[in-house]
Amino acid sequence: MRILGIDPGLRVTGFGVLEKHGSRLQYVTSGVIRTGEGTLPARLRIIFESVAELVETYRPDQAAIEKVFVNVNPQSTLLLGQARGAAITALSVGGLEVFEYTPMQLKQAVVGYGRARKEQVQEMVARLLTLTGTPGKDASDALGVAICHAHSGEMLASLAQAGPVRSPALAAKGLRMRRGRLVG
Amino acid sequence: MRILGIDPGLRVTGFGVLEKHGSRLQYVTSGVIRTGEGTLPARLRIIFESVAELVETYRPDQAAIEKVFVNVNPQSTLLLGQARGAAITALSVGGLEVFEYTPMQLKQAVVGYGRARKEQVQEMVARLLTLTGTPGKDASDALGVAICHAHSGEMLASLAQAGPVRSPALAAKGLRMRRGRLVG
Repeated sequence: MRILGIDPGLRVTGFGVLEKHGSRLQYVTSGVIRTGEGTLPARLRIIFESVAELVETYRPDQAAIEKVFVNVNPQSTLLLGQARGAAITALSVGGLEVFEYTPMQLKQAVVGYGRARKEQVQEMVARLLTLTGTPGKDASDALGVAICHAHSGEMLASLAQAGPVRSPALAAKGLRMRRGRLVG
Repeated sequence: MRILGIDPGLRVTGFGVLEKHGSRLQYVTSGVIRTGEGTLPARLRIIFESVAELVETYRPDQAAIEKVFVNVNPQSTLLLGQARGAAITALSVGGLEVFEYTPMQLKQAVVGYGRARKEQVQEMVARLLTLTGTPGKDASDALGVAICHAHSGEMLASLAQAGPVRSPALAAKGLRMRRGRLVG
């Protein structure tokens, strides 16, 4: 099972691809799509075509996307919505099922704490995928939402078997956060 | 010059195509895209593919789109933004320049009054394009934004010639509104 995670934004859209083998997660790739200084339509086109290219190149089985922060500024919310629309459209046109997770669900799944800081997410993503370096903020969020989806699927499967619900992500990896620090 | 006007929405997206021959406007087609009851990604895909089909079928030279109403409900603004993102992406991927107009600019250009009611826009669109019936609300707004663009281009052209700025749309047609009623 190969999962493409997307963290959409009008200026920078993060992406991350990972594979799930049983309970093990394997990193494939990650990075960002930058839309430059063009007009809104030009930027949306870059997001759409770049996500379409990722789908074609990496052929994921499913996609997970972070729900955007609903800003207090309605104009910002509208701009984010448009970027998100372009990204989801590319995934949907590419024939992928798209799953949505809130930033809180992502943090809960990755760090084990829904109000974790960005740096904690970055650090845990690197550890869960045994990366040698820490990915950037946007790529890290995209990998995080892919991890979140990988584990939620696991939970759904175990629920379907009427077995006990497994504790998410972190416990399975033997990693915990305590006072904002990793506890191996 | 053929103009495609779009009034985006997640449930219903209006469209209208018209041609500008000098100062004369000619109706080509109009209608709505309905997205049904599917998931968000499925709906965005319908918007994208339908707009792409309109571009391919009618081969417009330029596109005009209504700026969505920034709702007091941030969740609604986000949904509208996503629909708008899918529509603009289709126009941009189709190689079209996209021009944006606020509802107020649209009403000013079509009715001559920025706070005109929906029914006044519908009535004036029908008159300006000499339609035998009144188009529906969404198709009417899409035709309205195309008319708005047709006239704003006219104004820009006359400004470029350093001539006097012509009064918009309505005066040129000899039509005016008075107390919400048309005055031939």
